[in-house]
Amino acid sequence: MQVHLPKIPKTFRKKSKTVSKAGLPPGTLVHIGPKKTEKQLVELIQFDQNELIETDSNNATEILEKVNPEKVNWINIDGLHNIDLIQQLGNHFHLSPLMLEDILNTEQRPKLEEYDGVLFLPMKALNTLSGNQIEYEQISFVLGSNYILSFQEKEGDLFDQLRNRISDPANRVRSKNVDYLFYRLIDTVVDNYYIVMEHIGEQIEDIEEEVYLNPTSRTMQRIQDVKKELIILRKSLYPIREAISSLLRNDYKVILPENRTFYNDVYDHIIQLIDMFETYRDLISNLMDMYMSTISNKMNEIMKVLTIISTIFIPLSFIAGVYGMNFQHMPELNWRYGYFAILGLMLTILGGMLFYFRRKKWL
Amino acid sequence: MQVHLPKIPKTFRKKSKTVSKAGLPPGTLVHIGPKKTEKQLVELIQFDQNELIETDSNNATEILEKVNPEKVNWINIDGLHNIDLIQQLGNHFHLSPLMLEDILNTEQRPKLEEYDGVLFLPMKALNTLSGNQIEYEQISFVLGSNYILSFQEKEGDLFDQLRNRISDPANRVRSKNVDYLFYRLIDTVVDNYYIVMEHIGEQIEDIEEEVYLNPTSRTMQRIQDVKKELIILRKSLYPIREAISSLLRNDYKVILPENRTFYNDVYDHIIQLIDMFETYRDLISNLMDMYMSTISNKMNEIMKVLTIISTIFIPLSFIAGVYGMNFQHMPELNWRYGYFAILGLMLTILGGMLFYFRRKKWL
Amino acid sequence: MQVHLPKIPKTFRKKSKTVSKAGLPPGTLVHIGPKKTEKQLVELIQFDQNELIETDSNNATEILEKVNPEKVNWINIDGLHNIDLIQQLGNHFHLSPLMLEDILNTEQRPKLEEYDGVLFLPMKALNTLSGNQIEYEQISFVLGSNYILSFQEKEGDLFDQLRNRISDPANRVRSKNVDYLFYRLIDTVVDNYYIVMEHIGEQIEDIEEEVYLNPTSRTMQRIQDVKKELIILRKSLYPIREAISSLLRNDYKVILPENRTFYNDVYDHIIQLIDMFETYRDLISNLMDMYMSTISNKMNEIMKVLTIISTIFIPLSFIAGVYGMNFQHMPELNWRYGYFAILGLMLTILGGMLFYFRRKKWL
Amino acid sequence: MQVHLPKIPKTFRKKSKTVSKAGLPPGTLVHIGPKKTEKQLVELIQFDQNELIETDSNNATEILEKVNPEKVNWINIDGLHNIDLIQQLGNHFHLSPLMLEDILNTEQRPKLEEYDGVLFLPMKALNTLSGNQIEYEQISFVLGSNYILSFQEKEGDLFDQLRNRISDPANRVRSKNVDYLFYRLIDTVVDNYYIVMEHIGEQIEDIEEEVYLNPTSRTMQRIQDVKKELIILRKSLYPIREAISSLLRNDYKVILPENRTFYNDVYDHIIQLIDMFETYRDLISNLMDMYMSTISNKMNEIMKVLTIISTIFIPLSFIAGVYGMNFQHMPELNWRYGYFAILGLMLTILGGMLFYFRRKKWL
Amino acid sequence: MQVHLPKIPKTFRKKSKTVSKAGLPPGTLVHIGPKKTEKQLVELIQFDQNELIETDSNNATEILEKVNPEKVNWINIDGLHNIDLIQQLGNHFHLSPLMLEDILNTEQRPKLEEYDGVLFLPMKALNTLSGNQIEYEQISFVLGSNYILSFQEKEGDLFDQLRNRISDPANRVRSKNVDYLFYRLIDTVVDNYYIVMEHIGEQIEDIEEEVYLNPTSRTMQRIQDVKKELIILRKSLYPIREAISSLLRNDYKVILPENRTFYNDVYDHIIQLIDMFETYRDLISNLMDMYMSTISNKMNEIMKVLTIISTIFIPLSFIAGVYGMNFQHMPELNWRYGYFAILGLMLTILGGMLFYFRRKKWL
Repeated sequence: MQVHLPKIPKTFRKKSKTVSKAGLPPGTLVHIGPKKTEKQLVELIQFDQNELIETDSNNATEILEKVNPEKVNWINIDGLHNIDLIQQLGNHFHLSPLMLEDILNTEQRPKLEEYDGVLFLPMKALNTLSGNQIEYEQISFVLGSNYILSFQEKEGDLFDQLRNRISDPANRVRSKNVDYLFYRLIDTVVDNYYIVMEHIGEQIEDIEEEVYLNPTSRTMQRIQDVKKELIILRKSLYPIREAISSLLRNDYKVILPENRTFYNDVYDHIIQLIDMFETYRDLISNLMDMYMSTISNKMNEIMKVLTIISTIFIPLSFIAGVYGMNFQHMPELNWRYGYFAILGLMLTILGGMLFYFRRKKWL
Repeated sequence: MQVHLPKIPKTFRKKSKTVSKAGLPPGTLVHIGPKKTEKQLVELIQFDQNELIETDSNNATEILEKVNPEKVNWINIDGLHNIDLIQQLGNHFHLSPLMLEDILNTEQRPKLEEYDGVLFLPMKALNTLSGNQIEYEQISFVLGSNYILSFQEKEGDLFDQLRNRISDPANRVRSKNVDYLFYRLIDTVVDNYYIVMEHIGEQIEDIEEEVYLNPTSRTMQRIQDVKKELIILRKSLYPIREAISSLLRNDYKVILPENRTFYNDVYDHIIQLIDMFETYRDLISNLMDMYMSTISNKMNEIMKVLTIISTIFIPLSFIAGVYGMNFQHMPELNWRYGYFAILGLMLTILGGMLFYFRRKKWL
Repeated sequence: MQVHLPKIPKTFRKKSKTVSKAGLPPGTLVHIGPKKTEKQLVELIQFDQNELIETDSNNATEILEKVNPEKVNWINIDGLHNIDLIQQLGNHFHLSPLMLEDILNTEQRPKLEEYDGVLFLPMKALNTLSGNQIEYEQISFVLGSNYILSFQEKEGDLFDQLRNRISDPANRVRSKNVDYLFYRLIDTVVDNYYIVMEHIGEQIEDIEEEVYLNPTSRTMQRIQDVKKELIILRKSLYPIREAISSLLRNDYKVILPENRTFYNDVYDHIIQLIDMFETYRDLISNLMDMYMSTISNKMNEIMKVLTIISTIFIPLSFIAGVYGMNFQHMPELNWRYGYFAILGLMLTILGGMLFYFRRKKWL
Repeated sequence: MQVHLPKIPKTFRKKSKTVSKAGLPPGTLVHIGPKKTEKQLVELIQFDQNELIETDSNNATEILEKVNPEKVNWINIDGLHNIDLIQQLGNHFHLSPLMLEDILNTEQRPKLEEYDGVLFLPMKALNTLSGNQIEYEQISFVLGSNYILSFQEKEGDLFDQLRNRISDPANRVRSKNVDYLFYRLIDTVVDNYYIVMEHIGEQIEDIEEEVYLNPTSRTMQRIQDVKKELIILRKSLYPIREAISSLLRNDYKVILPENRTFYNDVYDHIIQLIDMFETYRDLISNLMDMYMSTISNKMNEIMKVLTIISTIFIPLSFIAGVYGMNFQHMPELNWRYGYFAILGLMLTILGGMLFYFRRKKWL
Repeated sequence: MQVHLPKIPKTFRKKSKTVSKAGLPPGTLVHIGPKKTEKQLVELIQFDQNELIETDSNNATEILEKVNPEKVNWINIDGLHNIDLIQQLGNHFHLSPLMLEDILNTEQRPKLEEYDGVLFLPMKALNTLSGNQIEYEQISFVLGSNYILSFQEKEGDLFDQLRNRISDPANRVRSKNVDYLFYRLIDTVVDNYYIVMEHIGEQIEDIEEEVYLNPTSRTMQRIQDVKKELIILRKSLYPIREAISSLLRNDYKVILPENRTFYNDVYDHIIQLIDMFETYRDLISNLMDMYMSTISNKMNEIMKVLTIISTIFIPLSFIAGVYGMNFQHMPELNWRYGYFAILGLMLTILGGMLFYFRRKKWL
């Protein structure tokens, strides 16, 4: 058997870093998790129906000066290693130290929290890397009355399409309040889960074909890999449902009643994702059963071949052995047609055996 | 082993299309899913106790002009690819853009929603195709105070019997309000689930007979196919229960109190379907156990045959081998009855073996 | 292996008839299920503390004329195929058409419903037939302020003991209201579940003994049969719990507060039945594990025998084979004691093997 | 294999007796279950802080005359077969007939009920018999405003330690109300569960050692026996939790608010017992997995030995067979060193095989 | 097979001691569990923003005299065997006897209780010992309005880091009330769970590699050991969640509203730990499946080798046997090229067999 070493996903290994904080006093800002981008850029997108201003800077002060409470202000931060910058933003918007701590902790579980009227929603964004591995990125949103802060672990084009739409003055997002933008951001993150789900769905169909046609020990590893992906995916998916559900249950001031239905829509999507998730889990567990049963069947078939061959030839060999004995007085040996009589006996036994196996449906 | 490639149901493959919307702004109307009919027909059935008017048209305006708030108006649309038409209906009845979006999304999960007093209920209708495959069709209902819109993915005769009954002036539906017709439509869809359930029940009985009489690797595939059908069926069944249950819990204005008991009746049917579903799931899982145990038993039996034959003949062959040796000095070879003595010894061993196997209940 | 075809219980097959109603308008009275009795008899038992009048008739009018609101009136109907008669009763007592429909549907799930102060409780009564099969009978009760209707699928002696007690003027039932009789009827049906449970319990003990002493492939079938019985039983048991629990939670006018504790008692019995049910389910699943492990052990044992025999004799046969070769120059063949030396070698190998197996604890 | 018949616990067999009541009118007092003691003794322990009076008698009237509402009266009845006596007690304290019925039914599920201010709590007391079997005893408590009745199936020393403490005037129980004694009685019964749990825990550790060191088919039977014990134990444990939890939730007059915390303590113990129960269930299920995997490993090992021996010697025997053929013209037979060449060839094949097995890590 | 005896963790053995209390009256103070430290030290850390006083003593009276209600008083007790000392503390702070009992019971389940405004929180602290074993230590906290008592089973450095921070006058803990210190203590205990979780995570990755590369029977034991650790861990983890959740739900006076968010943070950590726990449980169960499937595959492979060798050589040996017979009249033996013809036939059969196996993909 050629043993091949699978790519052990390191995704759930990241937790080890969490430990490095044990013992530190709460409120100490430490970036937990690997540094995923070099530069840390702050980007302000400020707009109302008439005007759109985009500012990029490495200097938080510059950005913060431009924040205009009359408009929608979306501040996007790529990279989490510049702790001073995040502290500066926290001070400016009076964010709780515990919130800042959670923003920096890339192991943070998705949840929804309110601190003095400010909503805090850390989520996981997904990416499918080449090689079937899912990459998880921590994205935290902070929603105030007229601003949104979004913190991404990595630079990325996750929100590029959304930026394009904002630049279109006719787009609904331009005429709406900041909470509508908040919805659009969440929706963008959730929509990415569909791509990963789709990818897993394709893997399952692939594996299914493999199980039916040519199951090998590699098939089992693929099944296990998908199961593991689903185990890890569940850790992101279910907490997001809780978070959005709590958003729907509570009357947060920063969410306008007229925009409620949009969040209902996001909730619907998450329920659908969870449905898909559970369907996949059941399908993969069926495939597992199927694989095990196929292996059993193969074993049975191998045993059958061995048994048929042995059962036919072992008695025949015995007969040949008997007449290979060197006793001086073995009357059959001297018969004229002894040899042919014995060959005939062997053929009869062979026929009987074959008939027996056929009746047993082994042949 | 003759490997035969099963029909991999593509039902859960449709989800892939959902992805094509990721990135589009919410509210953009896109038909998600395969186009299942060529023409898109609008049909108005308008009635009260005295009069029944049926109008078919490709022209929504023509239909909409005829809508009469004094009567029951049922507008049925076959096919979802004509987005303009659906937009036109949406505008006329002031439907929410999110609702229109869900109507077009054939991956939409069943649910019940109220938008400004209008009830929206997307469901899945089932059909059993030849070849044991279940076909899912998205059917969405919109219930206003005096109209029902029904959107079907495909042309079909699902509601033909209902149309016949409406044409009978003595039928209860003619003397009742639009919410009674709504109940009748839902009931018709739910009744179709019984046919599919029945079909699955028959498959299970078939498989059961196969498992008991002659289990092959094809049996395992049939078991897995039914399990998969049930997994997919669950995705339609449980959300419908939720939807109807939420309809019963809430006092929607469009449902008259006097017609409540009818919805209770539908709810009963769904609970019964879910009971059947769970019974089938348990039965199929029993069959799986039974199959695995039968395979084990067969294996045992094969091993027994091999073991009995080998255990009897290997020692006998050894004895024959001993007296086939060519040593010059082997006293037994020269005995007068050496040959017969050895044959006797062999018979004794044979008898002893058979006795041993009988005592072990292997024979 | 002698394959024997088990009695496939047709109990869950009955559902097929349900389908025959799909498409019919709700409220159409159709008897769903096999006709289980030929004659359809109506029987009125009317009593108060002083007097008891029993009337049997095939004529509903005759019976209905005798109904006396001052007394307890129990009308028992055997057989469900005479739809006119049931319609007549329905009209007289102003029963809802949906209720009549459910009475005729022998696939009806147990439930409790109130229609205008009238309680409706369809249940399943059980019987153990010879041959270990459970027979299900639909029994529906209708409780009004001074009457009870009971509809049985079949003639039967289920309530005979109760009739005897009613005929005793000193019996509590004679001095109580109609809701006490209702309790007694339910209690009689529930008590019959104990007999079936008992029967299943005995089967489980039987199977247990078989698994420990002599498991065969028939044992597996018996285990599966009991599992299937439990699956079907659950469909009756849990809904009855729901029904009685809903009866306890709600203040129905037809149940006098003073008789509440009796219903509590019935509820207790059902909870106990469900406890027994769950215990049996766990026990049977243990037996299944035990069976599978026993089969594995037997397989191991068979393999051991094969391995020991083969491992001992194959090398010995090889040695015999070597000295059976016909080379002209094989010095050993000419040794005086070559033969005995080789026999000694063989004995040594045999001893070594036996020692090895003993150390491995295979012997 | 030496099959040994396990002691099939008859504990869950007792239910059969329940059936003997089916058909009897409710309220008929029948003792259900085996008679576990010959004499039925009534014992009154009456005390306040100053005085303690103990009276034993076979005559209930004598006892009941002595009951003093000013003091704590604990009446303990051993044995349930004297129905008249229990009826007499029931009449004196105005107990509901349904309660008396439950007291006599030793299959009664633990529960808490209130009848007119009187609390009724039937429980199961456990004993570990020699031979690893758990014995269940029905103990029912009735708590009135100034008396406790305790009904035990058997004479026993369960409450002996408690009697000793009561006889100590300094003990808290002497200065407290009757509800504190009630707590002490329940606590005593619950404490006995720890002993049984402990016993099961020891069995699990034993089995664990056996599974690791020397698993036999007897190990599997021990695992199954413990699983069965746990299944039956659950039937007692969970209902007691419900009963005590309902006692905590409701404000029963007979429980003084100041003594509430004591019942909290009992509840804590039961939760801890349930924790232990669930831990044991998981551990035993792990052991089962471990056992099955060990059996698989053994099988693998046996197969390996067989395969190595067969694979080495079958080809060698074939070669020997070839040169045992009696053809007249076989050139090798006449070679001077033919025999040694062939022996050399055989050694080479042997070496190759061993090398192959070593590379496969089979050796 | 070399059987090696695993270290059977004795962790869940401790329960046996609990039993030693059965029968004792509640409220009797007994130390349950092994004595884990020799000396029992009382330590008072008293501080406000300005001042910090640390006192160590073996004399409780000395410590209690120094308690100052104006400051934060943290009394830490190492070791639980000095019952008098604990009784003395209990008297001074008016602690309930049931609480003292629970403090001494090292088997106590984590819970949160309030006795007269005093919060009582027994928890389990974890340590990973060398040799992969988790050590559990009972730590109980008592929170009054101005004091915290912490009871540890063992001396240890669990709170050393916290002591350091308290000694820093600038640290937040110095400016906050006693309930903030309470939070810091709980947080320290909870943070230690991460280290154990991390350790288990590493073990799982190790085992994963072992399963993929070289699964042996030791791998199965490692899997079982981790499963057992998780089973025991669950007993600590879930009750702590309940305790903190109940702390959040109730408005305890001793917790200032301003410090609520800190407890929210602890709750978050516990939820995250439970997420990790559940992920690990699923991963380990996947590994188990993987292991079992690998074992099956190995078995298959072994069987294949055996079958191929036997199937090829058994028929060939038979042919050799036929021509080793000693019949006088066997025409083939006298053919000139008989021997070579037979060798050719054997080669043909060999080739056919190899072709057959290749087509079956066995080679």
